[in-house]
Amino acid sequence: MSVMKELRDYFSEIMRLNYILALLGWDHQVNMMGYKNIEGRSEQMALITKLIHTRLVSEKTGKIIKQAEKFQDLNDIDRAMLREAKRAYDQETKLPEALVVEIQKTAALAQQTWQNARRNNDFKSFIPLLEKTLELQREKAAKLETHPDLYSTLIDLYEPGATYDWIANIFNPIKPKLINFVKTLDSAPNKPNNAIFDKKFDPDKQYELSYEILKKLNYDFESGRQDRSTHPFTTSLGSLDVRITTRTTEPFPACITGTIHECGHALYEMGIVKELHDTILCTGTSMGIHESQSRMWENIVGRSKEFWIYWYPTFQKYFPEHLKDYPLEDFHRAVNYVHPSFIRVEADEVTYGLHIILRFEIEKDLIDGNIGVNELPEIWNSRFEELLGIVPPNDALGVLQDTHWGSGYIGYFPTYFLGNLYCAQIYDRVLKKMPHLPEDYKKGEFSNLLNYLREEIHQYGSIYRANDLIKRVTDEDLNPDYFMEYLEKKYKPIYGL
Amino acid sequence: MSVMKELRDYFSEIMRLNYILALLGWDHQVNMMGYKNIEGRSEQMALITKLIHTRLVSEKTGKIIKQAEKFQDLNDIDRAMLREAKRAYDQETKLPEALVVEIQKTAALAQQTWQNARRNNDFKSFIPLLEKTLELQREKAAKLETHPDLYSTLIDLYEPGATYDWIANIFNPIKPKLINFVKTLDSAPNKPNNAIFDKKFDPDKQYELSYEILKKLNYDFESGRQDRSTHPFTTSLGSLDVRITTRTTEPFPACITGTIHECGHALYEMGIVKELHDTILCTGTSMGIHESQSRMWENIVGRSKEFWIYWYPTFQKYFPEHLKDYPLEDFHRAVNYVHPSFIRVEADEVTYGLHIILRFEIEKDLIDGNIGVNELPEIWNSRFEELLGIVPPNDALGVLQDTHWGSGYIGYFPTYFLGNLYCAQIYDRVLKKMPHLPEDYKKGEFSNLLNYLREEIHQYGSIYRANDLIKRVTDEDLNPDYFMEYLEKKYKPIYGL
Repeated sequence: MSVMKELRDYFSEIMRLNYILALLGWDHQVNMMGYKNIEGRSEQMALITKLIHTRLVSEKTGKIIKQAEKFQDLNDIDRAMLREAKRAYDQETKLPEALVVEIQKTAALAQQTWQNARRNNDFKSFIPLLEKTLELQREKAAKLETHPDLYSTLIDLYEPGATYDWIANIFNPIKPKLINFVKTLDSAPNKPNNAIFDKKFDPDKQYELSYEILKKLNYDFESGRQDRSTHPFTTSLGSLDVRITTRTTEPFPACITGTIHECGHALYEMGIVKELHDTILCTGTSMGIHESQSRMWENIVGRSKEFWIYWYPTFQKYFPEHLKDYPLEDFHRAVNYVHPSFIRVEADEVTYGLHIILRFEIEKDLIDGNIGVNELPEIWNSRFEELLGIVPPNDALGVLQDTHWGSGYIGYFPTYFLGNLYCAQIYDRVLKKMPHLPEDYKKGEFSNLLNYLREEIHQYGSIYRANDLIKRVTDEDLNPDYFMEYLEKKYKPIYGL
Repeated sequence: MSVMKELRDYFSEIMRLNYILALLGWDHQVNMMGYKNIEGRSEQMALITKLIHTRLVSEKTGKIIKQAEKFQDLNDIDRAMLREAKRAYDQETKLPEALVVEIQKTAALAQQTWQNARRNNDFKSFIPLLEKTLELQREKAAKLETHPDLYSTLIDLYEPGATYDWIANIFNPIKPKLINFVKTLDSAPNKPNNAIFDKKFDPDKQYELSYEILKKLNYDFESGRQDRSTHPFTTSLGSLDVRITTRTTEPFPACITGTIHECGHALYEMGIVKELHDTILCTGTSMGIHESQSRMWENIVGRSKEFWIYWYPTFQKYFPEHLKDYPLEDFHRAVNYVHPSFIRVEADEVTYGLHIILRFEIEKDLIDGNIGVNELPEIWNSRFEELLGIVPPNDALGVLQDTHWGSGYIGYFPTYFLGNLYCAQIYDRVLKKMPHLPEDYKKGEFSNLLNYLREEIHQYGSIYRANDLIKRVTDEDLNPDYFMEYLEKKYKPIYGL
């Protein structure tokens, strides 16, 4: 079976080039603030990207894959390795280099234009490049042709195996339920009050505290680091080098919840079994599953009463000026304040899904040409009102808020909400197996949950596709009912309903 | 002349791969302390090294060089670019891959063994790997055959154009002069006292202060960063990304003088003219010239009376507990305390040359097989006594102190002392052109010196070889008399002679 070893080693080199590319990106975002060398660095990144591309589309790659395909008796790992190798090879060979370059160049330009457009609340200036982006993404999808419809092909890039229909069938029934639930909470007589977060919390202390939490959550500082950056992110620079970043510039407790979120991503990558290290399978299996891990730690654990029973005294010590006389009960309620708002990344876990459904439906219409780019602000605002009951006062707080479209990411948004859904279903199973688990959190003990996730999910990396994985773990396909059940069970007591 | 453009671009890609390799190294030393991913990172570094090698030895490289060689009317830059391209190609093609791999593996092993040997003061355990290292370096030199004798070929790797004979002719006459001068100073009736440096200076304040000094010395923080590491170093990750590191673990003021030293290296790389950016010429022309820049800022500027007239009040503010009542005069004398000592990296600028001459002569004898590795400790100690009048009490403080041989660097040491010599000769010219320059330092003004160095040296990168450069700047070949003159003029007043 030396053919499989050849495939494994060959793609390990490509994986290493990806890790190197990740280091170039991490260093850029963490260490090069206000640097003159931005152009030099992007040349370096372009060079590695080119080397990866050249390797992937080479005759040798095709030959190695063909040889491996002849084998019948592959085990789970080998089969998955071959599947991912083939997927990468197909994607890379189906796309003409000219198109790839055009997409990259357009993204660089569109990103810049979008930033200015948002700053100046000037959607019109973004129209030409957004139109071009859509056109290029349509062309890309037509070349890749993974699914009969263009949008599904784009979704598949981030959530392998998922299609528009499959997601629509999941999102559609949950949409009215979410709308109603938001209304119920928002009109509750005894709503939480989150005015405490209008106060100024010292950024350095926030950072220190986030580090304390990472340690307790079993983030492995010998296989990663925490640094500061403008936008928080997680990135793997090696199978044993999974780094996260934190920001302290947003109102409290975004630094804390954001750090826990990134920690969830990192724990997933850190838990991949050694046998897969440096292979093409050494990464989370889909964006949705990845997001399920970050959201489980951020929302289910990190906003639970039990979590705060353990942590609140520490928080009070760090910020006595604001918290000394502020009751735990009120703090926990403030952390779970639900309210329709304009900005997706600041949304609570109840309204969040509606922000995503809006984008999912709009992206579909845009790709299919059912709506024109110039109609976007109007459509955005009217659909936003239908979903959330409020109208963005301007496009900066509306259609212009996200970086994704300007970067050429169409089909990415739905994975965020899929993450919430996967997460609730997995956690339901966790509680069935370990009903007393939340008691752990009260004692600052989080390793039993982590061990379960490692055992059931993390260790496998990309061996199993998302739909197989969820079935292996929970014995059924993705079922959004778990999410609604979770929300109701959690929020009704908090809102006194 | 599109052939020259092709050569330029082709080698720019190789330069970029070198920058990427430098980032992998920088990140390893700065960010990965106590990391599990050491092996993964060295795989990544090995991959980039292999990519550089494969590119250099490819048929295409040979063809591009041959084409360029046909042109007659090359300007200085093109000629130098061709020269360096050819040099890199020749080196890389003359060395069989098996030898390169063997050297790398042996270095990794020898480095480990050396560290243990030094820790345990056990020279014997280092003998087999040092013998193997010498054998491999001899083989390497025989393959490269840049000069008729092996040692010159090895020296040429670090100081292009220099030979054993040329260096010996420079070092030999200065050796007795240095020995005498050290004796004169050491027996002076009114020697400085450096007991002040036995006190504990807060590491964080040292670091802050070193940052203040970097700013004043015009280190460009938009084209570089300062970080902490175990050993201080300077590295270029791009033409506009020249980073330095500082350590605060050694007795004061090593953090300060070390930072100024690295700053001198960085200013050289930062001053290279834009036209050479990302080309094979975008680096200092030799280790000796590089060291002349770091030592000019560290020793000539950074240990001058005028420098301390400006800085001492700030130092007193940072460390009032030690310096408030300690006179400037005494501090300046302490900073220039000369005394024979065992460790090269801790030596003052007078005894330093003798440490190097010792190594230079021993390396020559080792490569030529005139002395055996097993005789080394004895020979080291007896020659050390001849040069410095003291005998190392053990091998850890003697023959085992340096990392170089264990890393396979033979022929590197002489460039350090060449740096001192180049430096004195260049600074003599500086003072002839701008006799009042040191008055600048009293006002915290260091840009006139930097501008001169940029104009005369830095901007050219590797266009001119060291011997051409020194002649262009000073109108004569390297002449060690300037160094002895500098020492006498500086130290006699400090020592009241």
